[in-house]
Amino acid sequence: MNADYIAALDIGGTKMAAMVASREGPLARISQPSIKSGTPRSLPEQGLALIDAVCEKAGVPKNAVRALGVASAGPFVREEGAIALCSPNLCGGLSGASDLPNDWKSIPLEKVLRERYERLAIDNDCVSALVAERAFGAVIDEPDCAYVTWSTGVGFGLCVDGRVLRGKNGNAGHAGHMLLSEVDESVCGCGNRGDLEALVSGRNVGNRSHMPAAELFQKAREGDAQAREIAERAANWFGRGLYNVVATLDTRTFVIGGSVWLHHGDWLTPLVMREIESRFPALTGGVRILPAALGRLVADVGALALAVPEEWIPAWRQSKPWEKLANA
Amino acid sequence: MNADYIAALDIGGTKMAAMVASREGPLARISQPSIKSGTPRSLPEQGLALIDAVCEKAGVPKNAVRALGVASAGPFVREEGAIALCSPNLCGGLSGASDLPNDWKSIPLEKVLRERYERLAIDNDCVSALVAERAFGAVIDEPDCAYVTWSTGVGFGLCVDGRVLRGKNGNAGHAGHMLLSEVDESVCGCGNRGDLEALVSGRNVGNRSHMPAAELFQKAREGDAQAREIAERAANWFGRGLYNVVATLDTRTFVIGGSVWLHHGDWLTPLVMREIESRFPALTGGVRILPAALGRLVADVGALALAVPEEWIPAWRQSKPWEKLANA
Repeated sequence: MNADYIAALDIGGTKMAAMVASREGPLARISQPSIKSGTPRSLPEQGLALIDAVCEKAGVPKNAVRALGVASAGPFVREEGAIALCSPNLCGGLSGASDLPNDWKSIPLEKVLRERYERLAIDNDCVSALVAERAFGAVIDEPDCAYVTWSTGVGFGLCVDGRVLRGKNGNAGHAGHMLLSEVDESVCGCGNRGDLEALVSGRNVGNRSHMPAAELFQKAREGDAQAREIAERAANWFGRGLYNVVATLDTRTFVIGGSVWLHHGDWLTPLVMREIESRFPALTGGVRILPAALGRLVADVGALALAVPEEWIPAWRQSKPWEKLANA
Repeated sequence: MNADYIAALDIGGTKMAAMVASREGPLARISQPSIKSGTPRSLPEQGLALIDAVCEKAGVPKNAVRALGVASAGPFVREEGAIALCSPNLCGGLSGASDLPNDWKSIPLEKVLRERYERLAIDNDCVSALVAERAFGAVIDEPDCAYVTWSTGVGFGLCVDGRVLRGKNGNAGHAGHMLLSEVDESVCGCGNRGDLEALVSGRNVGNRSHMPAAELFQKAREGDAQAREIAERAANWFGRGLYNVVATLDTRTFVIGGSVWLHHGDWLTPLVMREIESRFPALTGGVRILPAALGRLVADVGALALAVPEEWIPAWRQSKPWEKLANA
């Protein structure tokens, strides 16, 4: 047995999960509701405690963990060079987030975690999903690709020329907040009107149709004319958003996940491709859409992928050891 | 005297320029109208002949040229892995370009030039402008930046995490063709309706105001109410386009050139910044706009910058030897 272990945290606005893995694969997983009270350090300290708990569950000595990968809800800011969270779902001190039981303006995620882990990688959840799909999923050896999630929100992880993009604060991939319409009055959580997320997110599609988004898309594919009109309009906006990414980055392959795509990607793909292919052939020729290979596990595998040593990757590709997480 | 020389080509839809430079700086420059008849090889062969001519003019032996940099009008396609041009201003065989005296569908630029030059770099003109501004201009040591030109068209060169982006065919940065409006009927040269270039290009602003764009912007800044409305609307669209790039790439610094910005950037900057700063603080905080430091010479210096050996750069930063090109 190899003495090396890695740990991973998946930090969301609602829940936090911790995992520990050996060369053979993930050994254990624990999740808890994300802490939203106390000091701004409380959330990363919860993460450290959760790593201790998952190590204990797996029988792994705490000091044998050699690297930590963290997939987190964004956006990020930099404080003295270190990544801090300023997610409106966690920080009650941000404008428009006053229903939370705290007055945090930011959470010193990297600072607190680095007190214990020197080998630490923190990425936005869509960026880490892309890292996972490039390591173990649908876009191994694809230098020009993007991961896209379409669920309650819309987010991207971007890769150009074989390198995953981070940007000045680690916020590259917030293309869900690109402006697409100057007349549509849908308001996004970020305050924008007419950005991609406002136009197509599950919540907004639901509001527009007065039914849950899942039901709307189901009715649309069953042929209900009114549902179909709303769903097709959402697919058109989504396609225009992907075209804009192609125009900006000369992307070849989109890997798409998230609850909307997991259930309805087969039906949506031709509608979305039509919006892309109808434009600028030198850019759009050869563009393709693939479903996320890691499915519902992409968040967990994403956090692990940020820490997994390169020499473990070939064996994991063969054995797909993350699949046991589905039952954890 | 150092025996090493580099050559550079700047290939546009109307004109082509060749330069040769030593460690001390550019030695000579020649330009000619771009050839648009003959076989698809004719244009790159014109480039080779022009390099011979500029070497002769400078008294440089042809075989002493150790590297070639090429800044070219795009877009590009790849043919057997090599970059070919499929610019609608050069290739008469593309749909909508039948007024040209040829039936070329693409131009084998890299293939022909590589027959003579092993050390060869070809980039889109905006990408090479960015490379030049990063080497010698306004964004030395800025890892997250973009060069933007606003003139008859709108184009970008993009840099994230310190690396200039190319994409699957070398077309990263065609963000001038991002869709911004679903109701504006302005048509872009690429066929899109309501993309950034259609909305703000000098040509379209001119069409809208029934006067040359230069005159329109001049009248606007002098206070003419009608001109001001059209110019401010263009500035707003341009700002929305830059915001979309920030949302996608977490860009910090925009360096802007092109004829519109060269003349009116001072007046346009606050209008454009307002569109950016009014959105998503975690993304837009700290974003800034700088004028292109290389001004009208950015195309020539861009082509040179693609070939210039790294060890020449510090001395060129000091001596700014490209300034003599202004009189060439």
